[in-house]
Amino acid sequence: MSKKYAIGVDYGTQSGRAVLVDLTNGHEIADHVTPYPHGVIDERLPGSGKPLGHDWALQHPDDYLEVLRRSVPAVLREAGISPQDVIGLGIDFTACTMLPIDEQGTPLCFKPEWRDHPHGWVKLWKHHAAQEEADRLNAIAADRGERFLPRYGGKISSEWMIAKVWQILNEAPEVYEATDRFTEATDWVISQLTGAFVRNSCTAGYKSIWHKREGYPSPGFFGALDPRMANLTETKLRGDIVPLGTKAGELTPEMAALTGLAAGTAVAVGNVDAHAAVPAVGVVTEGKLVMAMGTSICHMLLGTEEVEVEGMCGVVEDGIIPGYLGYEAGQSAVGDIFEWFVEEGVPAYVKEAAEREGVGVHQWLTDRASRYKPGQTGLIALDWWNGNRSVLVDTNLTGVVVGYSLLTKPEELYRTLLEATAFGTRTIIDAFHGSGVPVREVYACGGLPQRNPLLMQIYADVTNREIKVADSKQTPAVGAAMFGAVAAGSAKGGYDSIVDAARAMARVREETFKPIPENVAVYERLYREYRELHDYFGRGANDVMKRLKTLKDEASHSS
Amino acid sequence: MSKKYAIGVDYGTQSGRAVLVDLTNGHEIADHVTPYPHGVIDERLPGSGKPLGHDWALQHPDDYLEVLRRSVPAVLREAGISPQDVIGLGIDFTACTMLPIDEQGTPLCFKPEWRDHPHGWVKLWKHHAAQEEADRLNAIAADRGERFLPRYGGKISSEWMIAKVWQILNEAPEVYEATDRFTEATDWVISQLTGAFVRNSCTAGYKSIWHKREGYPSPGFFGALDPRMANLTETKLRGDIVPLGTKAGELTPEMAALTGLAAGTAVAVGNVDAHAAVPAVGVVTEGKLVMAMGTSICHMLLGTEEVEVEGMCGVVEDGIIPGYLGYEAGQSAVGDIFEWFVEEGVPAYVKEAAEREGVGVHQWLTDRASRYKPGQTGLIALDWWNGNRSVLVDTNLTGVVVGYSLLTKPEELYRTLLEATAFGTRTIIDAFHGSGVPVREVYACGGLPQRNPLLMQIYADVTNREIKVADSKQTPAVGAAMFGAVAAGSAKGGYDSIVDAARAMARVREETFKPIPENVAVYERLYREYRELHDYFGRGANDVMKRLKTLKDEASHSS
Repeated sequence: MSKKYAIGVDYGTQSGRAVLVDLTNGHEIADHVTPYPHGVIDERLPGSGKPLGHDWALQHPDDYLEVLRRSVPAVLREAGISPQDVIGLGIDFTACTMLPIDEQGTPLCFKPEWRDHPHGWVKLWKHHAAQEEADRLNAIAADRGERFLPRYGGKISSEWMIAKVWQILNEAPEVYEATDRFTEATDWVISQLTGAFVRNSCTAGYKSIWHKREGYPSPGFFGALDPRMANLTETKLRGDIVPLGTKAGELTPEMAALTGLAAGTAVAVGNVDAHAAVPAVGVVTEGKLVMAMGTSICHMLLGTEEVEVEGMCGVVEDGIIPGYLGYEAGQSAVGDIFEWFVEEGVPAYVKEAAEREGVGVHQWLTDRASRYKPGQTGLIALDWWNGNRSVLVDTNLTGVVVGYSLLTKPEELYRTLLEATAFGTRTIIDAFHGSGVPVREVYACGGLPQRNPLLMQIYADVTNREIKVADSKQTPAVGAAMFGAVAAGSAKGGYDSIVDAARAMARVREETFKPIPENVAVYERLYREYRELHDYFGRGANDVMKRLKTLKDEASHSS
Repeated sequence: MSKKYAIGVDYGTQSGRAVLVDLTNGHEIADHVTPYPHGVIDERLPGSGKPLGHDWALQHPDDYLEVLRRSVPAVLREAGISPQDVIGLGIDFTACTMLPIDEQGTPLCFKPEWRDHPHGWVKLWKHHAAQEEADRLNAIAADRGERFLPRYGGKISSEWMIAKVWQILNEAPEVYEATDRFTEATDWVISQLTGAFVRNSCTAGYKSIWHKREGYPSPGFFGALDPRMANLTETKLRGDIVPLGTKAGELTPEMAALTGLAAGTAVAVGNVDAHAAVPAVGVVTEGKLVMAMGTSICHMLLGTEEVEVEGMCGVVEDGIIPGYLGYEAGQSAVGDIFEWFVEEGVPAYVKEAAEREGVGVHQWLTDRASRYKPGQTGLIALDWWNGNRSVLVDTNLTGVVVGYSLLTKPEELYRTLLEATAFGTRTIIDAFHGSGVPVREVYACGGLPQRNPLLMQIYADVTNREIKVADSKQTPAVGAAMFGAVAAGSAKGGYDSIVDAARAMARVREETFKPIPENVAVYERLYREYRELHDYFGRGANDVMKRLKTLKDEASHSS
């Protein structure tokens, strides 16, 4: 039997990427990126040029198909293999990225009568115009003592499905009416590939408040939001919800022609980008925290019992790995903070020195920062540049730096910001560990761990845990391919479970980051300082940040 | 009678400047700067090249005479007036800038046997190597319940006379032994001009712990420091102490030849730079706070009763204006913070934009910052980049910024730093006003008010007081000249009192900075936030800054 492969397609915010993976060892044989022709639509609708509101962010569903049209044939070509040897296909997506479709599964925005209606289009994850709906939803859920609320750290996000659906109902009841189903984009793409509609347990659980045994919130709850939504889940959110790794179906002849793959190729149910990365680093059991580290951090952890953990984003059975409770938490800004600093806080002489030395500014700062020992800067920061999502779940919190002197250097501030984000992760780990969801090992994937070894050493020292780093540039796409191989099954040369797939294909680098005892000791003291400031500014002792925001709003809106 | 003039000589840290002033209206007719040939001596002794310790800062006494040799003839030449029409001479100096002299008034460092001994030289105000002595002095004074301590905000500085003298005794008892007197440089220069030695009430009071009625601390106190110092004040600190404006004597023929002035010209007793500025802006009565604003701020205020004010640097009868108690307070970094920010915290694009627009970076930031309304940045800072000298008197406090977001811009931080220093001044004003030393008006002199109108408006809004700005570039030198005119007296065409001199010669700009009520209201709310953070970090609720300093020291000293 010839060597077998699977393809994973990773749908990001600006582009989609196909990766062709060797099933024997997880090696990435070929990859190809297709930028979305319409990108993020946040000013005007394509065609009509209709202006969009503040905080809107839409996408064009055909862009997702364009990735299949261009990138899948490209990786086949580059790898030079027969389509017959690609036995499975999986995808991962940003979420909640959702759209309204009709009875035939056609996006409303493809239809002439809805093309010029903003609510007919895909709402991207970062569409933030449903904040009012989210606020009201949270207030009503709290009032009613809804049991689902603690599973989401006490707060349902405006980025998620129900808030976005409610916004449509409020602002465009005719669109709501004309919608047969609301679907995650990841499930819609799978339905296009297979011709059958099925929902995946990951997005249903994390983004649509679905629970494996309890199902969706009750009609009573939805009716309390709006009587017209009372039957939402049995109508517009209907559809089988199946665990990750389930075979959604087989590639239709039409999609085979479009992609260059063989008709009948097994297709896995949709998945979410960060969650697909978990098996790709070999994490298929409890005790191992996976950090998808980039502009922000998404923390994922498997558990065997459902408990409440302060500030978690969600706990979903089968949400990450079938058979486990998948816990998710996060930090709302990490790489974004370092980027902000390089853009807005690094003096010209640093930029010039970096240019002279032929290195990037991040690299220059990291080199200089690594010459300091823990504690040597005399500085500490609260990493709340984009609010706090870790355990406080409060977007009105802001960043703090304590310890400035006239001798403070940019590289010291840079190191302080790296450390602050590590303290944020430590806070999350302590919350899980202290709530009975053990964290024994830490895995990292994403862009940051590849680029910044100092950052990873600091995380190891601050968390006092060894950190293993993914040996892959496209961890989510590899994970998606693994789920594709599971959808195919061992009889076709794939795997019968994600555990088997991970055993063969997951890859972490040999070199790991081990805690250095003397650094751990100093960071333990600094972390206590972090927590004291964290609780002072974050738990109501001094709500100065909120009052400053109020003053800022007042000043910005006064004439 | 022809028009009469006086000369003021301002001795700064790097140079001395002579200003020739019209006695009828205070106009500056001519000025001339002489950079000190030896500058600040902080690495090696001149001649021997002997290396100096960390934190040392010395000067060469002949540099002070060089200013007289060069700058006084220069202003006479420039003004084109007869030396006979210069009826008075006054000087002002940095303080405590002190030196050991012998029985003839010769600085020890002028003598071959002491030339190569670092302790034989002038210790500049910013010589910081007597910190241990200051710490022990403060501990002993507190133990003994010395009554003088509250007059100095509870702390005698390492920059002042007694700590510096004690360092000499500890490290070089042979220099201590060989010293006939320790003198302020300002008094030494006057003794050179007149041939007679007299001490002024300003430096004696603020820098040598002298009190008009109580005199110096007791021999018991000095003996407790070191038995060898028990008789310090009756020996090496002996000398008449007379109020500012007193005529110290007349110019000797020798110094007349050196300066080009007429022998017999009246010479006022020495003075201190910031204090000389007070009458130069017309402040000769209580209720008016004068701020000398530059790298730091020195706040001066006249009162009629001696009270304790938290954190004041000193209260001295006749210390600023004869007949009044002169109160002094200060902020340890103001312009220095803005300078630090421009050096270390302003991104390249700002520097480039400023260059493109042909303005300085401070100017660019000020222009942008002035487009924000109070409160609009969402930021607040504690201005403790160089510790806190205002009311907490704690060098181990450090700077804080609260309110960072991913959208925070450099000009917002700049505005926040301006505001933070204004809150520091407000704290001082509140301390005085609340202790029964009223502050009704505010006057500003120095470099900052000339350069930054936004800063001055913020100070007016934050303090809710009108601010008048000196109409002089060299306010201290003009003040010194005024005291010279008083030394001459009205019979010679001068004045009989500094009050008379100020009435004729003091000058403030017509345009003042008036509080804008809506800004005052917002800053009142921001100031409450400042004070809450001030007390939290500064009064022991959370000593994180001190623990960070400890960690920093430990990290810096570990191998």
